Amino acid sequence: MNTVVYTLGELAEQLGATLRGDAAQPVSGLATLQDAGPQQLSFLANAQYRKFLENSRAGAVLLTPKDAEDYSGNALLIDNPYLAYARVSHLFETRPKAASGIHPSAIIDPSAQVDPSASIGAQVVIEADAWIGADVVIGAHSFIGARSCVGAGGRLASRVTLCHDVRIGERVVIQPGAVIGGEGFGFANEKGSWEKIAQLGGVRIGDDVEIGANTTIDRGALSDTIIGNGVKLDNQIMIAHNVQIGENTAVAGCAGISGSTKIGRNCMLAGGVGLVGHIEICDNVFITGMTMVTRSITEPGSYSSGTAMQPAAEWRKSAARIRHLDDMARRLQQVEKRLASVTPRGDAASDA
Amino acid sequence: MNTVVYTLGELAEQLGATLRGDAAQPVSGLATLQDAGPQQLSFLANAQYRKFLENSRAGAVLLTPKDAEDYSGNALLIDNPYLAYARVSHLFETRPKAASGIHPSAIIDPSAQVDPSASIGAQVVIEADAWIGADVVIGAHSFIGARSCVGAGGRLASRVTLCHDVRIGERVVIQPGAVIGGEGFGFANEKGSWEKIAQLGGVRIGDDVEIGANTTIDRGALSDTIIGNGVKLDNQIMIAHNVQIGENTAVAGCAGISGSTKIGRNCMLAGGVGLVGHIEICDNVFITGMTMVTRSITEPGSYSSGTAMQPAAEWRKSAARIRHLDDMARRLQQVEKRLASVTPRGDAASDA
Amino acid sequence: MNTVVYTLGELAEQLGATLRGDAAQPVSGLATLQDAGPQQLSFLANAQYRKFLENSRAGAVLLTPKDAEDYSGNALLIDNPYLAYARVSHLFETRPKAASGIHPSAIIDPSAQVDPSASIGAQVVIEADAWIGADVVIGAHSFIGARSCVGAGGRLASRVTLCHDVRIGERVVIQPGAVIGGEGFGFANEKGSWEKIAQLGGVRIGDDVEIGANTTIDRGALSDTIIGNGVKLDNQIMIAHNVQIGENTAVAGCAGISGSTKIGRNCMLAGGVGLVGHIEICDNVFITGMTMVTRSITEPGSYSSGTAMQPAAEWRKSAARIRHLDDMARRLQQVEKRLASVTPRGDAASDA
Repeated sequence: MNTVVYTLGELAEQLGATLRGDAAQPVSGLATLQDAGPQQLSFLANAQYRKFLENSRAGAVLLTPKDAEDYSGNALLIDNPYLAYARVSHLFETRPKAASGIHPSAIIDPSAQVDPSASIGAQVVIEADAWIGADVVIGAHSFIGARSCVGAGGRLASRVTLCHDVRIGERVVIQPGAVIGGEGFGFANEKGSWEKIAQLGGVRIGDDVEIGANTTIDRGALSDTIIGNGVKLDNQIMIAHNVQIGENTAVAGCAGISGSTKIGRNCMLAGGVGLVGHIEICDNVFITGMTMVTRSITEPGSYSSGTAMQPAAEWRKSAARIRHLDDMARRLQQVEKRLASVTPRGDAASDA
Repeated sequence: MNTVVYTLGELAEQLGATLRGDAAQPVSGLATLQDAGPQQLSFLANAQYRKFLENSRAGAVLLTPKDAEDYSGNALLIDNPYLAYARVSHLFETRPKAASGIHPSAIIDPSAQVDPSASIGAQVVIEADAWIGADVVIGAHSFIGARSCVGAGGRLASRVTLCHDVRIGERVVIQPGAVIGGEGFGFANEKGSWEKIAQLGGVRIGDDVEIGANTTIDRGALSDTIIGNGVKLDNQIMIAHNVQIGENTAVAGCAGISGSTKIGRNCMLAGGVGLVGHIEICDNVFITGMTMVTRSITEPGSYSSGTAMQPAAEWRKSAARIRHLDDMARRLQQVEKRLASVTPRGDAASDA
Repeated sequence: MNTVVYTLGELAEQLGATLRGDAAQPVSGLATLQDAGPQQLSFLANAQYRKFLENSRAGAVLLTPKDAEDYSGNALLIDNPYLAYARVSHLFETRPKAASGIHPSAIIDPSAQVDPSASIGAQVVIEADAWIGADVVIGAHSFIGARSCVGAGGRLASRVTLCHDVRIGERVVIQPGAVIGGEGFGFANEKGSWEKIAQLGGVRIGDDVEIGANTTIDRGALSDTIIGNGVKLDNQIMIAHNVQIGENTAVAGCAGISGSTKIGRNCMLAGGVGLVGHIEICDNVFITGMTMVTRSITEPGSYSSGTAMQPAAEWRKSAARIRHLDDMARRLQQVEKRLASVTPRGDAASDA
C-alpha cells in the first residue's frame, strides 16, 4: 500500500547523516533490527537491542558513529539515531491522505468559518461561530462546538468531540474518541444531595499538542483549563477542570489529574498515575507508573508510590503485616529501649 | 459571548442573601477572588483562600456573615456561600441553547416517541420504540437504542450512546462519549476458552443523575444495572453489570466498580478507586483515591489503601523491605521472646 | 418484549442435560435463584448461592447431579451449570435484530467491499478499500478506516472506530466507543521537546475476540499490535502499540498494557492492572486487581501488589511507617546483633 522508495543517499541528505556504504541502496520502509529486510532501514537506539545488529538483514542502519564501529553494513551515522528514526518515519506514513474540501454530509453552521484549505470529513458537525484554520483535517463524525477554534495544521481523527469554547493551537493532533471541554465534576452538597455548578470556563490547548484516544479534558469551572505548548497526552487520560499543564510535559495512558492541579514543564507522568486536586508539581518531575500523588512536589526528581509485585501467596502475608506495621514499629522501639537497659552500648538511659 | 447583567440587588433577592453595599452594582459574571474584576461576583468557601479576600477586585463577594466582618466591600451574606455560588452560576451559563425541534439529519424510527418540546441534534439516531420526554436535549451524533427512554428535562451532550433497554430518569445530564448499556464482561470458561453469556438485563438510571465523559455503564446480565437518584458520576468511570449505586453517592474519575457490587447511599468514592465484584458498601462511606476495595464495608467512615509517595530512590528501599515484611515480623517476635528471657520485665516466660 | 417460550424438554435436548421433572414446563426467560419466577430457568454455579435454592420459585434449575440431590423441583442435570447457562442465555437475547442491508445514510467508499449479507447501520462511514465479510453487523455511527477488514460474523455495536489497516478476524464483538488503531504514544525527545514518530504498523485481531466499551488498542509503530484468538477484553482497557496478547487471555476493565509488552495464553488480568512496557508474561498467569507489573513473569501462577484497605486513620499510620521501613529493618538487624552478644543463643559472634 506504500510504494515510496528513497535511496540511502537521499535519506542521508535529508537527515544530515554521514553515509557509509551504498548511496544507491533503495529504502522502502522502516523496521526493527530483527524484522528488517534488505530494502528496509533500521536503527539502534537502545543498548539492549545491540545483540540484533550483527545478524540484521536490514538494508541500512541508523547508528551512532561509535556503534557503527562494530558494524560492516550500510549505515547512516548520526548522533541521535532515535530522533533520526522519528524524522524519517514520516516519509513512510501509511495514513491515507484526507480528501480536500468539505464532505457533502458535513453539517456546518453558516456562521462558522472554515479555511478553504481545510479538509472536513463525512458527517462532521460544526456549530455556530466555530473557526477552522488553514490545512486543518477533521475526521468523520467529529463535532466542533460553538465558538471553538482549531489552529492551522491541526489534525483531528474521526470522532473527536470539542464542546463549545475550546481553543486549539496550531499543529495539534487529536486521536479518536477524545472529548475536550466536557463539563467538570462540580457540585455543592446541600443536606446530602448535590447541586450542580455550571462550568463556565473553556479549554485552551497550546501548539504542537497531541491528545490520545478517549482522553477527556474538562472545561474550567470559572477560568479555562490550560494545556501548554508541546504537551503530549496518551490515551484514556482524565484531566479535570482548571488543571494546568506546562510546556512539553508528557503524560502516559490512564493517568488522572484532579481539579485545579498545576503541573510544571518538562515533566513525565507514567501510566496510571493519579494526582489529587489543588496541588502543584514543579518542572522536571518524573512520576513512576501508578503512583498516587497526594501532595505538591517542589523539587525536581523521580517520585513513586505503591508496592512491588509478589507471588500472591507471599503478597497476602506482606499485606497483612503492613496493616500492623504501626504496632511493629512501636514494638521495635520498645525492644530497643529494653535492650539498651541490659547492654553497655544502649543509648536510652532509662527503661521507665 | 455572554452579556447578561444582573444587579447585586437582584442576585440578593434570587439567593435569599442579605445585601451589604450597593444594590445597583452590576454583575456580569463570576470569578475567583484572585481573578475577579469590578463587574464580577466572587465567593469565599474555603479558608485557604481567605488571604485573597482583602485585595480582591471583585465587584461583590458571597460571604458568611462571620467572614464578612473582615471585609468592607460589597457582599452578599449567606450561610453557605459555595451553595449560593452553585445556584448563581447557572445564570451565567455559556453553553449555547439547543435549537428546538428535530434536526433534519436525525434518523428516528417511526415507532419512537419524541416529545414535541424535545431538541434532537444533528445526525442523532433513535431506534424503534424509544421514548424521549419533554424538554429533553439530545446532542449531535448521539444514539438512542431500541426501547430506551430519556425522562423529562434530560440533557445528553453530543455523542452519547444509550444501547437498547436503557431507562433514564428525569433531569439527567450525560457528557460526551458515555456508553450506557454496553454488554457486560460475562463468559463461562470451557477447557480454556471462553463462551459468551448473553447480557439480558438493561440499565436503570434514576432522576437527577450526572454521568461524565467516556464513562461506561454496562447492562445487567439477568436483571438491570441500577443507578439511584441523585448519583453523580465523573469521567471515565467503569460500572460493570448488575452494579447498584444508592442515592446521592458521588464517584470521581477513573473509578472502576466490578460486577454485582452494591454501593450504599451518600457515599463518596475518590478518583481511581477500584472495587472487586459481589461486595457491599454500606451508606456514608468515603473511600480515598486509588484505594483497592476487596471486601465489603459494613461501617460508615473513611477507608484507604496504597502507600504514600516518596522520592523514587527511597521508595525502592521501602518496596524491597515490604516484600520481606513477613520475615521481619517473625524476627521481631523472636527478638521479643529472647529479650524477655534476659530481662526481668519480659512477658514471655520461656524461650523454648 | 421477548415472548419466546421453550419447554423444559426442548432445553434439555439442546443442552444435552438430563431432565428431571415436567418436560412440558414452559420457560420464557432466565433469572437468579432469588429472582426467578415460575416460568424462568435458574442455575446454581456458586456454592455461596446454595442457600437460595430451597426457596427459589424458579420453574426449573440447572444443577449438577450432586446439587440436585437436595432439590425436589424441576431440574436440568448437567456437569457445568454455568456453561449451560451461558449457552441457553442466547436463546433469550433481547438485543434487537439488525436490519439487513446498507442504511441509506451510510457513506461507503466505492472501492470498499461489503458482503451482501452484512448489515450496515445508519451514518456508518466506510473508507477506501475496506472489506466487510459475510453476516457482519456494523452499528450506527461506526467508522471503518481505509483498508480495514472485519471478518465474517463480526458484530460492531454503534459508534465503533477502526482506523486504517486494522484487520479483525471472524465472529469478533466490539462494544460502543472502542477505538482500534489509534496512533501509539511514540515521541523522540530533542532538547526537551518531543518529536512525533509516525505509527506505521496496524492492528491484527484474531477470531472470537470481544472488545469492551471505550477500550483503545493502538496501532503498531513499525509492525502490528496483535490480539490472539479468543481474547476477551473488558471496558476501558488501554493497549499500547506493539503489545501482543496470546490466545484466550482475558483482561478485566481499566487495565493498561504499555508498549511492546507480550502477554501469554490463558492469562487473566483483573481490573485496573497496569503493565510497564517491553516485558513478557508467560502463559497461565493470573494477576490480581490493580497490581502494578514492572518486570517479566516467567512462572505461571498468581501475582499481586498493593496494600490491603484499612480505615483511613489506621492507614495513615501504616503509610507513614512504610516510608521508614528501611530504617526499621536496619534497626531490627542491629537489635538482633546486640541481642546475640548478650544471650547464649546468638548467631552473631561479634557486635563490632
